[in-house]
Amino acid sequence: MREFHVIDRIRRSQGALPRWVLAGPGDDAAVLAPGGGGGGKARLLVTVDAMVEGVHFDAGALPPAAIGRRCAAAALSDIAAMGGEARWAVVSCGVPRRGRWTEGRLLELTRGIEEGLARWGAALVGGNLASSAAFFVSMTVGGSCAGAPMLRSGARPGDLVAVTGELGGAALGLELLRAGRRRHPLARRHAAPEARIEEGRRARPHASACIDVSDGFLQDLAHLLEESGVGAVVEAERLPLPSPLPRGRRFAPGRVLHAALAGGEDYELLLTVPPARRRAVEKAFGRGGVVPLAFVGEITGRRGVLKVVDKNGRDVRVPRRYGWDHFAHASPPLRGGGAKRRGG
Amino acid sequence: MREFHVIDRIRRSQGALPRWVLAGPGDDAAVLAPGGGGGGKARLLVTVDAMVEGVHFDAGALPPAAIGRRCAAAALSDIAAMGGEARWAVVSCGVPRRGRWTEGRLLELTRGIEEGLARWGAALVGGNLASSAAFFVSMTVGGSCAGAPMLRSGARPGDLVAVTGELGGAALGLELLRAGRRRHPLARRHAAPEARIEEGRRARPHASACIDVSDGFLQDLAHLLEESGVGAVVEAERLPLPSPLPRGRRFAPGRVLHAALAGGEDYELLLTVPPARRRAVEKAFGRGGVVPLAFVGEITGRRGVLKVVDKNGRDVRVPRRYGWDHFAHASPPLRGGGAKRRGG
Repeated sequence: MREFHVIDRIRRSQGALPRWVLAGPGDDAAVLAPGGGGGGKARLLVTVDAMVEGVHFDAGALPPAAIGRRCAAAALSDIAAMGGEARWAVVSCGVPRRGRWTEGRLLELTRGIEEGLARWGAALVGGNLASSAAFFVSMTVGGSCAGAPMLRSGARPGDLVAVTGELGGAALGLELLRAGRRRHPLARRHAAPEARIEEGRRARPHASACIDVSDGFLQDLAHLLEESGVGAVVEAERLPLPSPLPRGRRFAPGRVLHAALAGGEDYELLLTVPPARRRAVEKAFGRGGVVPLAFVGEITGRRGVLKVVDKNGRDVRVPRRYGWDHFAHASPPLRGGGAKRRGG
Repeated sequence: MREFHVIDRIRRSQGALPRWVLAGPGDDAAVLAPGGGGGGKARLLVTVDAMVEGVHFDAGALPPAAIGRRCAAAALSDIAAMGGEARWAVVSCGVPRRGRWTEGRLLELTRGIEEGLARWGAALVGGNLASSAAFFVSMTVGGSCAGAPMLRSGARPGDLVAVTGELGGAALGLELLRAGRRRHPLARRHAAPEARIEEGRRARPHASACIDVSDGFLQDLAHLLEESGVGAVVEAERLPLPSPLPRGRRFAPGRVLHAALAGGEDYELLLTVPPARRRAVEKAFGRGGVVPLAFVGEITGRRGVLKVVDKNGRDVRVPRRYGWDHFAHASPPLRGGGAKRRGG
């Protein structure tokens, strides 16, 4: 079974959605028209994300509050990718009858979720607790968007490809954590990712399309290209690599590039910007208080063709199976846990 | 670990919620003020529910579409308990890498969810698919409510206790399914429960409080009493028992009463009605197109005291551990799968 294949089949099998569903399955969050999802002038954004112990996080590697903050960041990131503001969340937990998940740890987890949400003014308004052989946390976040949200489908040939912050930090951070190097600044990129809510808000009026980088830069870019019906060329040297880079053979340049292209869970935003809006978006990011924005490539008309080149325009070998599909990989290299997500 | 104990601790540990959260954790659904959760004149209702294979449904006992319809009914039932209308849903699935859950079965499950939602004009607008050792479906439903929703906390001494439809049918239906008696009408009560959306809509203007019967009549009544700070006396003979009752020792009167008091997943509505509104609510239910409403008891001022009596007012012995708490019972008698839920 291939995750994205199943999702495509589900989308194709769906009947027509009501007119007030402005964007349904296939984007980072569903977009419901004012009035449709409960009224108002603002569009309602809704997204759901899940983390499963042993799949999305190592059992015992992180304290419960950190797991909670990561869950919140992953779900909030989908709202960020639309350019929206998060408002509320409900959480559904599956907990084994016996084992490490005691009442105290569940309270810590909840506290972490609430902290992660509170940073962006969102509140945990409800939840569900069920018995389950596998520990899971599934989180639904609702948000609002005053104007037209950024969709995955708006990229046009000639648009610039841009990305916030740094790529590959979460995957390298996980390697560091596994090597016991908890103090390295990159370890934090895995343990405590940040949703780019403010970056999304500033980009929204200018960007033609957006997706968050949760499964790996190339894979998420491929999703955006598919929804927009376009291709892209990315210049490897322009990719914003994490810093400071750790020393050691495990972190040789080739591995770092691989992490930047295919590492999951960076929760950066991948934007496309019409050339005429480049100055405006740079100005919006230049006001401080946000991570930098790097321009890394260009959208082409060659539908479905995604090339990575060096500064001389020569093809760079990329991981054949870039990114992270739950059901296709047993153990993808350098993945940062691989939050699985489907828009909406 | 006791489920409701954990939930209580989480609620107590929460800081103050924003003012636009009109009802947070502790009710069937969260209630967000107009404008707060995305705007509008109508309140936004949000609820989440999960079903785990081997816990909430028997692996292989029901076809995937029926499991999907049951998930939808369980989540919609929380909206019904508020007197609201369902609008949209997002679903989060955890699927083992190997095993019975093939692509085809996942599509069937999704179709069942969509059918269950479509009955009430709601649309599936997004979802998430993750790898998980245990198969689970977690569903968030959003709805709206034109007026003040029914809460669990509004019951006052002297109010009448009423319940829609029949009690215990789902638990007896599960027994029948397990005995291979699939054709008995009650088997359908387990396989294809219905959310009482229309009943909730009609009751809303008259009822002082409401909860849906998902964990068992006595347990859910106890939740309502706790939130309202009151007690209740229920007359056993007035409980609406399922019909036609199956023959056999397994379905002796004592077992049937037990199923009515403690069986889970009936998804009926348990209402409290001020005496002055009895005629009005009877009139609303008398117009046809809904299941009957039975008056079964009265709210008392004896906080936390829940008595079941016969027609002479003598105490009836009730199951000591009535209802269904995931983490307290290994195998509760006659449970209908036991949908675990916490309001909001």
